[in-house]
Amino acid sequence: MEDNKFQMELKLKEIAQILGGTIDGDEDTVINNISGIEDAKEGDITFVANPKYINYIEKTKASAIVCSPEISSESKNLLKVKNPYLAYAKAITFLNPPREETGTIDERAFIGKDVKLGKNVTIYPFAFIGDGSTIGDHTTIYPNCFLGRKVKIGSNTFLHPNVTIREDCIVGNNVIINSGAIIGSDGFGFASDGAKKFKIPQLGIVQIDDDVEIGACTTIDRATMGKTWIKRGAKLDNLIQVAHNCTIGEDSVIIAHTGISGSTHIGDRVTMAGQSATTGHVKIGDDVIVGARGGVAADIPPGQIVSGAPTMPHRDWLRSTLIFKKLPEMNQTIKDLKKKISELESKIKG
Amino acid sequence: MEDNKFQMELKLKEIAQILGGTIDGDEDTVINNISGIEDAKEGDITFVANPKYINYIEKTKASAIVCSPEISSESKNLLKVKNPYLAYAKAITFLNPPREETGTIDERAFIGKDVKLGKNVTIYPFAFIGDGSTIGDHTTIYPNCFLGRKVKIGSNTFLHPNVTIREDCIVGNNVIINSGAIIGSDGFGFASDGAKKFKIPQLGIVQIDDDVEIGACTTIDRATMGKTWIKRGAKLDNLIQVAHNCTIGEDSVIIAHTGISGSTHIGDRVTMAGQSATTGHVKIGDDVIVGARGGVAADIPPGQIVSGAPTMPHRDWLRSTLIFKKLPEMNQTIKDLKKKISELESKIKG
Amino acid sequence: MEDNKFQMELKLKEIAQILGGTIDGDEDTVINNISGIEDAKEGDITFVANPKYINYIEKTKASAIVCSPEISSESKNLLKVKNPYLAYAKAITFLNPPREETGTIDERAFIGKDVKLGKNVTIYPFAFIGDGSTIGDHTTIYPNCFLGRKVKIGSNTFLHPNVTIREDCIVGNNVIINSGAIIGSDGFGFASDGAKKFKIPQLGIVQIDDDVEIGACTTIDRATMGKTWIKRGAKLDNLIQVAHNCTIGEDSVIIAHTGISGSTHIGDRVTMAGQSATTGHVKIGDDVIVGARGGVAADIPPGQIVSGAPTMPHRDWLRSTLIFKKLPEMNQTIKDLKKKISELESKIKG
Repeated sequence: MEDNKFQMELKLKEIAQILGGTIDGDEDTVINNISGIEDAKEGDITFVANPKYINYIEKTKASAIVCSPEISSESKNLLKVKNPYLAYAKAITFLNPPREETGTIDERAFIGKDVKLGKNVTIYPFAFIGDGSTIGDHTTIYPNCFLGRKVKIGSNTFLHPNVTIREDCIVGNNVIINSGAIIGSDGFGFASDGAKKFKIPQLGIVQIDDDVEIGACTTIDRATMGKTWIKRGAKLDNLIQVAHNCTIGEDSVIIAHTGISGSTHIGDRVTMAGQSATTGHVKIGDDVIVGARGGVAADIPPGQIVSGAPTMPHRDWLRSTLIFKKLPEMNQTIKDLKKKISELESKIKG
Repeated sequence: MEDNKFQMELKLKEIAQILGGTIDGDEDTVINNISGIEDAKEGDITFVANPKYINYIEKTKASAIVCSPEISSESKNLLKVKNPYLAYAKAITFLNPPREETGTIDERAFIGKDVKLGKNVTIYPFAFIGDGSTIGDHTTIYPNCFLGRKVKIGSNTFLHPNVTIREDCIVGNNVIINSGAIIGSDGFGFASDGAKKFKIPQLGIVQIDDDVEIGACTTIDRATMGKTWIKRGAKLDNLIQVAHNCTIGEDSVIIAHTGISGSTHIGDRVTMAGQSATTGHVKIGDDVIVGARGGVAADIPPGQIVSGAPTMPHRDWLRSTLIFKKLPEMNQTIKDLKKKISELESKIKG
Repeated sequence: MEDNKFQMELKLKEIAQILGGTIDGDEDTVINNISGIEDAKEGDITFVANPKYINYIEKTKASAIVCSPEISSESKNLLKVKNPYLAYAKAITFLNPPREETGTIDERAFIGKDVKLGKNVTIYPFAFIGDGSTIGDHTTIYPNCFLGRKVKIGSNTFLHPNVTIREDCIVGNNVIINSGAIIGSDGFGFASDGAKKFKIPQLGIVQIDDDVEIGACTTIDRATMGKTWIKRGAKLDNLIQVAHNCTIGEDSVIIAHTGISGSTHIGDRVTMAGQSATTGHVKIGDDVIVGARGGVAADIPPGQIVSGAPTMPHRDWLRSTLIFKKLPEMNQTIKDLKKKISELESKIKG
């Protein structure tokens, strides 16, 4: 992974100037690479953000370690910061600026009629830009992406290869959409006349606001009418289903394989852990955390931590889950008690 | 969403002529748009199909509301019909006819040898049509779609962008396939010789009958031999896995993230709710409903409603789930009883 | 399905020479097709590998049946082998050699700068091969596939249509990647400063070793640093999520909809059944089997069979699951016991 190497060498004190924090060790240590604590070599800087990795501090070959203030080491140069994970993110970003795109429209891309392109837009071969679409400044569209008619995309947005954005959908600024994601597929709605199913046309759109990231092969269905709405700063992992007319609030985080049924309204800063789900037409308040595989079947007030299906307070779920393991034992105890009571009853009668 | 506006203005009585039903209110009310009850403006017609929204009737700004006969309102014009959801579907469809396609084959599409094209077929740029394929009248194929060798597609079928249909597969008439869907990927079959795994070639096909809809990023594996078969009118949501040699019966509805293992036979009019699953080689009878996250591990007779994993009758599952929440309490009760019995035993001995 | 027909007719004894095993019946029976036991016609050879199908032996119209040595039949020609499923795999492979590819680079494909192509490489229209990529001998790349900059692909590897392989990723020899799979999408990592989320650049790669198969719409995220690593012979089904920095060991089998969280290390010959999952930073030992929907929340030593969420020994889970169904009954028993104890207490007091 030579690509992780910096273009330059930096002293630890220069890195401290960028990240903040205080140095415990040799501030002139030369750093020329960034790496994980297990793979680090001499000249590398590494990070301890997860407590699981604290015992690697003395073992790593890294020349310096970014960590939280309470950590100490006899042999290592430490750069102590309040939030090592954030420092790590900022360091990688600073030291590995994204590759510059060409700012050109490849002639093998298809550009429809009345398309408005901002400055420095890059469009790769085999991308299809539908009639009447608008693409903002510095936005990049990789091969095999599809934009339907009248799609609007903001500035500094990045579409990885093989992304589909259907007609009329709106994508904001600084959005990243990973490969295979489908934005604006038909919502799943059918009216039955008893015998067969009649498709309900899905006339709405998907609106994705600024600073959102959408994972690979995540599907976001267009609204029946109105919009399915992913608000500013929301982060969606891979293979997530967002059904028609849902709202996902600002800075919410949705983990892989989560399924969000129609007309669910998710508040701001909500976390939905992996493989969780909702039934339709429920509201999840701000700052709620839904545990892995939680199944939300009713409204949840703000700030709750819930798990299980249907969801219950997380602590209750933990307790019930612990006892679930002991059910056979509990069953036996009940049988024993039954027997003892029979014996007692006989004795008393007798 | 100006696109939802009708091309024309209609009076409420004209809409009643199309949908049937009786008017309670001013039959000459002018309607020029259709919208959701929460977003409706003056001049809009809206619908109440879900009882959750009945209390919006007096609040909505809509000029008319389609609803079921038992609803009444002092201030609103009502159009009362037997099945408001179906009326709603029909109204949207009537008032928003699908956009007409060009009926042309773009020169940037790849058309293989011996391809047979019906009348008025539309093929967009970067679509790949394999040798010997057949495409019926009025069928539309969007950009980046792939049809392998000898694929057969019927009439009035619509492939959204980025759909893959592998060699020899068959798709009927009036089928809609959403973006990212994969039809005819290799079934997952390996024979082990103890040390390593030997791939079993997947020589069969996928057959999709008329009036089927397939969701975004849904994957349907080809059969090992014979066919994986999606029968007439079945509706599959997004991100569903259908393994090799399965059959999904007529008018069945499968919700997102459901995983159907190999050689599962699903009857007609079956519902499988979100994130449900089957083990392989099971039969699910006609009209069965499998609840959200139900795990079908054995054959299910027709007409049953089941939930849980492994599945049990839905009412039993509800009861057990309710008690699951109370397990800690139950555990405490058992401990208390144990103690009391010990005390009773002592007293009697004493 | 005429395509399943052999190019030639073979006698049963010739097939026995290829597969091994002993014939019980007429060794000169002419065989000209291979098919499933339910669909077989005269002239077909079929197989019984799953005991569920033993009772089809007398009913099938097949002219010969490959089966295990202990099976006998009065009316049918049997070819008895130790491992019928493996024999079946080998027979299909022998009798249906894969179609030969053209070994040409279509001019409608995009080939970047400094691309190194081996002998007999086939690249279809609308495939995009990024600058500096390397593709080994006899490798085939179908339409709409994307290879980013500096991707390395080995020999005899097959990319089905619509596969995405992002920059710097490495794919070995004899690898099959099904349609819609995404290799090297951004890992899901954000550092929070309390108010908003800061994206952690994902600088690592995905490395896929020899003999791996990746299912349709399966997503494998690139590492933050270092690599996400799918080792030799691993087989991944459809719609699986593999997060950043995971390792999947040799010959492991992962079934559809499984979600593997970041930095999970899965050993060799592990099976993860459908819809199972792991939390991050756990280790699963060699030869572990995780049951359907198992949720791995802690390290699992080698050789264990586990189920449930969080996982427990499979047998314990079976027992607890059985009792789960009886919880209402158990609840009633406890109530009854409580009442009896009260009665006993009264009697003794009295």
